[in-house]
Amino acid sequence: MQSYQKKHRISDETRRRLEEIVGASAVLTSEAKKFERYGKDQVADPKYAHMPDLVVLPRTTDEVAAVMKVANQERIPVTPRGAGSGLSGGAVPIEGGICLSLERMNSIIEIDTDNLVAVVEPGVITHEFDTALAPYGLFFAGYPMSEEFCSIGGNVAENAGGGRAIKYGVTGNYVLGLEVVTPQGEVFQVGGKRLKDVTGYDLRHLLVGSEGTLAIITKVIIRLMPRPTHRVSLVALYRSVSEAIAVIPAIMIKGRVTPTSVEFMDRICLHESCKMLKETLPYQQADAMLLLEADGNDEASVARDAVKLEQIAGEYNPVTVLRAETPEESERFWKIRKQVPWAIRNLSADQSLEDISVPVAAIPDMVEALYALGRKYDTPIPCFGHAADGNLHATPIRNPEHSAEHWQDMLPKLLAEIYRETAHRGGTISGEHGIGHKRNAYLPLVMEAAQIETMRRIKQALDPNDILTPGKILPVA
Amino acid sequence: MQSYQKKHRISDETRRRLEEIVGASAVLTSEAKKFERYGKDQVADPKYAHMPDLVVLPRTTDEVAAVMKVANQERIPVTPRGAGSGLSGGAVPIEGGICLSLERMNSIIEIDTDNLVAVVEPGVITHEFDTALAPYGLFFAGYPMSEEFCSIGGNVAENAGGGRAIKYGVTGNYVLGLEVVTPQGEVFQVGGKRLKDVTGYDLRHLLVGSEGTLAIITKVIIRLMPRPTHRVSLVALYRSVSEAIAVIPAIMIKGRVTPTSVEFMDRICLHESCKMLKETLPYQQADAMLLLEADGNDEASVARDAVKLEQIAGEYNPVTVLRAETPEESERFWKIRKQVPWAIRNLSADQSLEDISVPVAAIPDMVEALYALGRKYDTPIPCFGHAADGNLHATPIRNPEHSAEHWQDMLPKLLAEIYRETAHRGGTISGEHGIGHKRNAYLPLVMEAAQIETMRRIKQALDPNDILTPGKILPVA
Repeated sequence: MQSYQKKHRISDETRRRLEEIVGASAVLTSEAKKFERYGKDQVADPKYAHMPDLVVLPRTTDEVAAVMKVANQERIPVTPRGAGSGLSGGAVPIEGGICLSLERMNSIIEIDTDNLVAVVEPGVITHEFDTALAPYGLFFAGYPMSEEFCSIGGNVAENAGGGRAIKYGVTGNYVLGLEVVTPQGEVFQVGGKRLKDVTGYDLRHLLVGSEGTLAIITKVIIRLMPRPTHRVSLVALYRSVSEAIAVIPAIMIKGRVTPTSVEFMDRICLHESCKMLKETLPYQQADAMLLLEADGNDEASVARDAVKLEQIAGEYNPVTVLRAETPEESERFWKIRKQVPWAIRNLSADQSLEDISVPVAAIPDMVEALYALGRKYDTPIPCFGHAADGNLHATPIRNPEHSAEHWQDMLPKLLAEIYRETAHRGGTISGEHGIGHKRNAYLPLVMEAAQIETMRRIKQALDPNDILTPGKILPVA
Repeated sequence: MQSYQKKHRISDETRRRLEEIVGASAVLTSEAKKFERYGKDQVADPKYAHMPDLVVLPRTTDEVAAVMKVANQERIPVTPRGAGSGLSGGAVPIEGGICLSLERMNSIIEIDTDNLVAVVEPGVITHEFDTALAPYGLFFAGYPMSEEFCSIGGNVAENAGGGRAIKYGVTGNYVLGLEVVTPQGEVFQVGGKRLKDVTGYDLRHLLVGSEGTLAIITKVIIRLMPRPTHRVSLVALYRSVSEAIAVIPAIMIKGRVTPTSVEFMDRICLHESCKMLKETLPYQQADAMLLLEADGNDEASVARDAVKLEQIAGEYNPVTVLRAETPEESERFWKIRKQVPWAIRNLSADQSLEDISVPVAAIPDMVEALYALGRKYDTPIPCFGHAADGNLHATPIRNPEHSAEHWQDMLPKLLAEIYRETAHRGGTISGEHGIGHKRNAYLPLVMEAAQIETMRRIKQALDPNDILTPGKILPVA
C-alpha cells in the first residue's frame, strides 16, 4: 500500500446526514457485503487499492449535489465511481472518505431520433446502451473495447478510446452535453442537444477525461450516428513490425480508405494468443499481425474498401493476408486480438498494462525501444494495441525467474525509461486509460512544468478544498 | 463607441523595450499606414470597434513570450489578432493596449505524410494551407466557409465551424496539438502528433475556442484526412421550412447517409439571392431551399448517396429537386447560398449577423419564432445557415422605414428576445462565430450562473491580472 492517505474521520453525525439525503440503505459501511470491491478497479497490482470509509449510492442529481455540499463543508474526500473497470486507479478512493458510486443512476432517459441524440445517466452499462440503440439503426460510435462491463460515466470521465478511434474518434467526440455537480454541490449543464456550440469555454471537453477530479457527471447527452450495416475483417501476418506498420499510411493516403480498425500484435502477443487458441494460421513465421477492418452502410463500397485493404496489405511482404469470408471467420480473427491480455497473463500475473500513445510512424522504432528495454531489464514487454492511432498497450511482465521483490523494485525504473522513450518520440503516457494515481508521478517525464502548473491552477480554482477525487492526475506536490 | 476602456498608458520606455524584442519596424503606432484596420474585425457595427495603442508584429514564439512578460509586468492589455475576419469582436482591443498581430508568423512548418499531420504557424491563411495540402491528396477537414481570408490561428481561437460540420466536425476536431504562450510569457506545448491523448486535462480543447483569452496560440498541429475525390450537389426547394427540415433526420436514419452539407435558406434569403443572381430556378413558389452535398473517395458510393439524397428530398413535397450534372451547375447552386450575405445587405447595411445553434429538430419552430419577432419589431430577420447541424445565421436587418437611432435602441431588446427563444428550444447564442464583446452581455440568457462562475474562475486562475484579451466572453462583472 502506498502512503497516500490523509486522515478524514467521518463522524456518526455526518453519516446520519448522508443517510438522510440518500436513505439509510444507500450508505454502506465496511460491514456491508461486497464492500471490498469499492476499494479497487481493474489495475492488477493490489498496491494501488485503497478502501473508502463509506460508500454512498445516490439515485438522483439532487442527492449527488446534497452529498457534495456536506462533503465540501466537512472537507471529506469524495471519489466518484462508475463500473470500476478503469485501468489507472481513477475510481479508487486513495484518501478514503466517500466512494460515490453512480451504479444506481443507470437510466437511459431518452433516445431522440429527431435530433439523433440520447440522454443517459452515468451508470448505464455501455453495451446495454448499444443494445437499446440497435433497433433504431443508430449507435454510439465512441465506445471502448470494454463495453460489456464499463459504464458511460466512466467512458466520459476517462475519455475512453478503443479499437475504432481512427475512424470514429473517442468518447469525447460524441459528448454533446453534460449535467455535472461541482465540488461545492452546484449543478449545471454544459452543452446540450445542439451539434455546434462555441458559447464560452469548452468546459464539456475539459470535464471529459478529467477523471472525476473537477466535477461529477450526472447526465450525458450523446450524439448518435447511423449504425454501420456492413463490415469486413482481414488478418495480415508480417515478418517485421516495420513492414506491418508501413501499411497504415499507405491505406490512408494511397488507398484513400479510413479503416475502422487496424489492431496490432507483436510477436509475443501473437504467438501466446495463437498457442492458447490452437490457431492454424502460419503465425510461427510472423513477428507481427495486423487485424484490419472496414465498415459502412453500403455493401458495395465496403467490399471495395476490403479489396483495397487486401491489396495494400499484400504490398509489404506479408507472410499471408486473409480476408474473413464469414462472420464466424471475422470472429475468429478478433478472438486472436481479444485473447491477448489473457494469453500474456500466462507468463506471469505480475504485470503492468501500459497505454502509451505515439505518432503512428514512430511505432516500429518505439517497439524496438521497448524490446531493447526488455533485454536491459531481462523481462518481457509484449506489445499490442490500436496501431492506426498509435496507441500501444506495452505490458512489462515479471520474468518468472525474478522475485516479486525484484519486480516491485525494478518496475518504476523500467516504466520511467519506457515513458522517456515515448516522450522522445513525440508520444505520451496515456492514450485511453488515463493517469489516475498509477501514472501521476511520471507526468513530468512527458509534460512541461508550465502545463502541469496550468492544470494545477485549474484544479485549485474549481476545487479549492481538494475534496473531489484527490491524489489523481497531478503529481503530488 | 461602448465605454469599455480602462486607461493603460504605454510609456516611451515600454515601447522601446517592445522594439528591442521585435525590432522597431515591428511596432506600429497610430501614425502607421493602415493602423486603423487593427481596431476592427468583420462585425458590421462600428460601435464594436476600438483602437489599440500599439500594434506589435512578432515573428517567433520567443518574441511573443518576451512581449507577454513585459505586458504582464506592466499590466498592459494584449489582444492577439489573426486575419481580422472574426464576427464577434474577438480581435478588437477594447481596452486599448497592444494588438499582437500574428500575421507574420505564417509558415507551414511541416506536412508530415507518414503521420498524416501538419504543423503550421497561426498566421497561415486557411486557403493557402489547403492549397499546399492538395498535391498530397490530403486536406484539413475542419475549415470554415471564410477560408479564403481567415487564418488558422483564428480558426483555432474561435473553434470555427462551417458548412461541412455534420460530416467532418469543426476546427477543434482536427487540432492534435498547440504551442501556446501564457499570459505570464511561459511557453508550452499541449498534445502533439499522436492521435490519442488522455494525459491530464484536455487543455487543447479548453484553449481551442477560448478566443485568445487564456493563451496565445503560436503553433498548431493539425490532423490531415484523405482528400475527397468525388462530390455531388443537389438543390431542393420547399413550400415550407418544416418540410425542408424534415428531410435531415430522414437522410441520416432512413438513408443512412451522413451528408457533407445541408445548407438552408429561408424565403427572404432565397428570394433576394436568386433575384440578385437572376436565377431561373422556380424559387418564387418556394419558402425554403436546401443545398445538399455528399462527398467521398469512391465514385460509385458517392453516386449512390446522391440517389438516396434525391429520393428522400423528393418525399417531402418539394417544388423541385435538382441534381447538379456538372461542376458548373454545382457552382451555380453554391452561388445562391454564398450570395446570401451580400444579397440581404441590399435591404440595409444596418444588420446583426447572428449565429444561434439549436437542436436540428427545433429549426422549424425556431424559424417561426424568428418570424414572429420580426413582425413584433416590424423588421426583417432573414435566416440561413447550416441546417444539418442546427446553426442558423438569423440576421435582424433595419427596416429602412425606421431611423438608425430606433434601430440601435431596438436591437439589444430584439437580440435578447431571439436568444431567449433560442435557449427555450435547447439552443445557444453561438455555434461557430464566438462571443467576443458582441454577445458577452447576453451570456446569462443561455448559461447558468454556476457555469459562468466556473468559466470566470478558470480565467482568473490562468490570467490573474486580466491582461490577455480582456473584456471578452465573460459578462463584465
